[in-house]
Amino acid sequence: MAGGVSSVNIYFVCFQEPPRKIQLRIHDGRWSPVVDLVIQSSHCSKVPRNVNLEKLRSGYLFPEISRHEFEHLQKNPDASLIRLGIGDTTHPIPDTITQAMAEHVRGLSTIQGYRGYGAEQGNMALRKAIAGKFYQDMGIKADEIFVSDGAQCDISRLQLLLGPNVTVAVQDPSFPAYIDSSVVVGQAGELEEETGKYRNITYMNCGPENNFFPDLSTIPRTDAIFFCSPNNPTGHAASPQQLKQLVEFAKANGSIIVYDSAYAAYIRDGSPRSIFEIPGAKEVAIEISSFSKFAGFTGVRLGWTVVPEELKYSNGFPVIKDFNRIVCTCFNGASNIAQAGGLACLSTDGYQPLRNVIDYYMENAKILVDGFESLDLNVYGGKNAPYIWVHFPGSNSWNVFSEILEKTNIVTVPGRGFGPAGEEYIRISAFGQREQILEASRRLKVYL
Amino acid sequence: MAGGVSSVNIYFVCFQEPPRKIQLRIHDGRWSPVVDLVIQSSHCSKVPRNVNLEKLRSGYLFPEISRHEFEHLQKNPDASLIRLGIGDTTHPIPDTITQAMAEHVRGLSTIQGYRGYGAEQGNMALRKAIAGKFYQDMGIKADEIFVSDGAQCDISRLQLLLGPNVTVAVQDPSFPAYIDSSVVVGQAGELEEETGKYRNITYMNCGPENNFFPDLSTIPRTDAIFFCSPNNPTGHAASPQQLKQLVEFAKANGSIIVYDSAYAAYIRDGSPRSIFEIPGAKEVAIEISSFSKFAGFTGVRLGWTVVPEELKYSNGFPVIKDFNRIVCTCFNGASNIAQAGGLACLSTDGYQPLRNVIDYYMENAKILVDGFESLDLNVYGGKNAPYIWVHFPGSNSWNVFSEILEKTNIVTVPGRGFGPAGEEYIRISAFGQREQILEASRRLKVYL
Repeated sequence: MAGGVSSVNIYFVCFQEPPRKIQLRIHDGRWSPVVDLVIQSSHCSKVPRNVNLEKLRSGYLFPEISRHEFEHLQKNPDASLIRLGIGDTTHPIPDTITQAMAEHVRGLSTIQGYRGYGAEQGNMALRKAIAGKFYQDMGIKADEIFVSDGAQCDISRLQLLLGPNVTVAVQDPSFPAYIDSSVVVGQAGELEEETGKYRNITYMNCGPENNFFPDLSTIPRTDAIFFCSPNNPTGHAASPQQLKQLVEFAKANGSIIVYDSAYAAYIRDGSPRSIFEIPGAKEVAIEISSFSKFAGFTGVRLGWTVVPEELKYSNGFPVIKDFNRIVCTCFNGASNIAQAGGLACLSTDGYQPLRNVIDYYMENAKILVDGFESLDLNVYGGKNAPYIWVHFPGSNSWNVFSEILEKTNIVTVPGRGFGPAGEEYIRISAFGQREQILEASRRLKVYL
Repeated sequence: MAGGVSSVNIYFVCFQEPPRKIQLRIHDGRWSPVVDLVIQSSHCSKVPRNVNLEKLRSGYLFPEISRHEFEHLQKNPDASLIRLGIGDTTHPIPDTITQAMAEHVRGLSTIQGYRGYGAEQGNMALRKAIAGKFYQDMGIKADEIFVSDGAQCDISRLQLLLGPNVTVAVQDPSFPAYIDSSVVVGQAGELEEETGKYRNITYMNCGPENNFFPDLSTIPRTDAIFFCSPNNPTGHAASPQQLKQLVEFAKANGSIIVYDSAYAAYIRDGSPRSIFEIPGAKEVAIEISSFSKFAGFTGVRLGWTVVPEELKYSNGFPVIKDFNRIVCTCFNGASNIAQAGGLACLSTDGYQPLRNVIDYYMENAKILVDGFESLDLNVYGGKNAPYIWVHFPGSNSWNVFSEILEKTNIVTVPGRGFGPAGEEYIRISAFGQREQILEASRRLKVYL
């Protein structure tokens, strides 16, 4: 060939029947002789890519953070990294709880202790214990509690329940799984590049200017309202008055609130730990919760969802019946080992040590809040939640994230990852060993 | 009121503004006086019920079986029930495996051994072990293996991946989760009452007349083909020739096979244990599998799905990238305790005892097959799978199910629960303690 080229890489995307012989047109206009083509052909199916997934931003936030962390370590192999990004628990699980799990596990090797499939909805003993511990005096029955393998998984199952044709509202900023799962099931509509918002999702702005609670008079009716308190990422715990407004708003609009209380155990100021503390909530709300942050079960995987019998679709059909069907069809119950651990968490012996762990994390939070405040930054959260939400006015949050990582080797999360309203913020997690938190606070003061 | 009636229960479904006063029309045509209405009003949301769930048959098969079992026990509290219905493992898990899990659990109470969130895709050590143990010489990489909390859960995640707009084919009969999850995501179309089939699903008839393999020349192209081998419920393991045909069919049609190999460990006659034993399958197939039946992990919850990098949508986009996104968004990894157990299953010390348990179940299967054959019934399965598929020509399978339950106190599954083609059949599970299986065989011979 002209110019001495002896091989050319050509990528034939998805020819059903790839060409066997080709001619190449050379830059001066002449043609090469016809040559045989040796192709490493690649078959493509004729299955179109799911349009919902096409609409999804490329990477889910937390794996993206891990990727940045990994790349930073590639460049700086000796960096002493402090991970305050992904809100991952770090404290060992109290002995009483792991002993109960180990005992259950040992039982699985005996004829008496072996257990196969459990109820898809969870062991009744655990469902009763959850009702008794977290919903006393709220009239929630064990039958209304569905044990899960974690809140994130149940968010998607709730989206399957609601289906593609409902309209949804989310707090902005908020935990990204609400929006991403909404996109996956097809509720979200197109992504508007200029605003970073999906067209069919209502973003309810929550910032310091409105005490982290949306001005409901400006919010259009939607079928579902995702609401997280204490909020991830802002750390704000909604007050009784705020939640009363929310329930009334949902009732007037005929909406269903999907209330995420995964961080309820961190509330210290008496704010409601459950939406069902608000009268009338059972007719308008589902609550998702989790052992992850309450008991350090992020890797063990256990959570629950409450669907009250009073909650009905517009045709009067009880929502709980459809959710039960989803749980039986798309899920097969949480690991029975995790469930044995969950039961131990709610026993007298298990519960108090967990409170101590939470106290420890909240002491961490105080250290971080003090550290950032000493830098004259506006700091939110950290009082009812293990997250600190720091304002860097005028900044791009991914830039702040990168700068902090470069200068201090501390991994945070850019607020933008939680929605457009998170743009000038950084979320810092208070999960960590005390010496790491102290060291992080020191580095922040020195380098920022 | 006439006739001395002093109170009447009236159910007002979802009046947004319920009436305050009513008149009752009495049977002889006269009207009552206008009376005040005291209503226990029930609020309904304005959220329409998901049309996909409206199309779903009322109960998922296995909870329905449990309900029948429960009702039978209510009526016959002293009945000595033998449960050969839901295919639930009964044999204790070998010690080596539970020891590994107990050790992992104890570690969670130590700073060194504590683990929070793991990779959503599963621990790399386990992914490598699965690749090495089950896919040696098939060129499947650890990166292509996604650890799950069980095959049933991943079926729904795969449906989320495929989305509502694909067409699907299923074996008839087949494990009901394929069709039910298809209905949930909106692929199935209307249920035709007369045939019992969903309009948009292609049912591939698999019975003794075609050696349990569909006549592909009569099957229209679909985007996805759900295929289970060894099949649940028929117990048939597809031959290499059958699977080669299936792969060629998928390739020619540009379809994606979703291959369920949850019972592969029960194959004894050398039939393929993975679709990836067939050349070219990586370009057309996803494989779902599970530790449930292989290791007695039905309650521990662990499985995996293989999505080869070679598998592409019609636009050339790799399916694995979207499945990874689904796993990161809608799932948060299997319990790390279950994963520690899974790793132990694949170790030399764990694997052999599991083979022994499988041998035990297959000996059960032989006893049941012999029992039914001695009744001059046509019996299928039980040779490469722990399920026996028995033909009762001309019968209604729910009636046979009820008759067996009434006469012998043995729980089975009516074939109709697996699809229209299961109508004259009963599935019997070989999971059970030996003495129960012998007793079941005895009762069947005496009472049928």
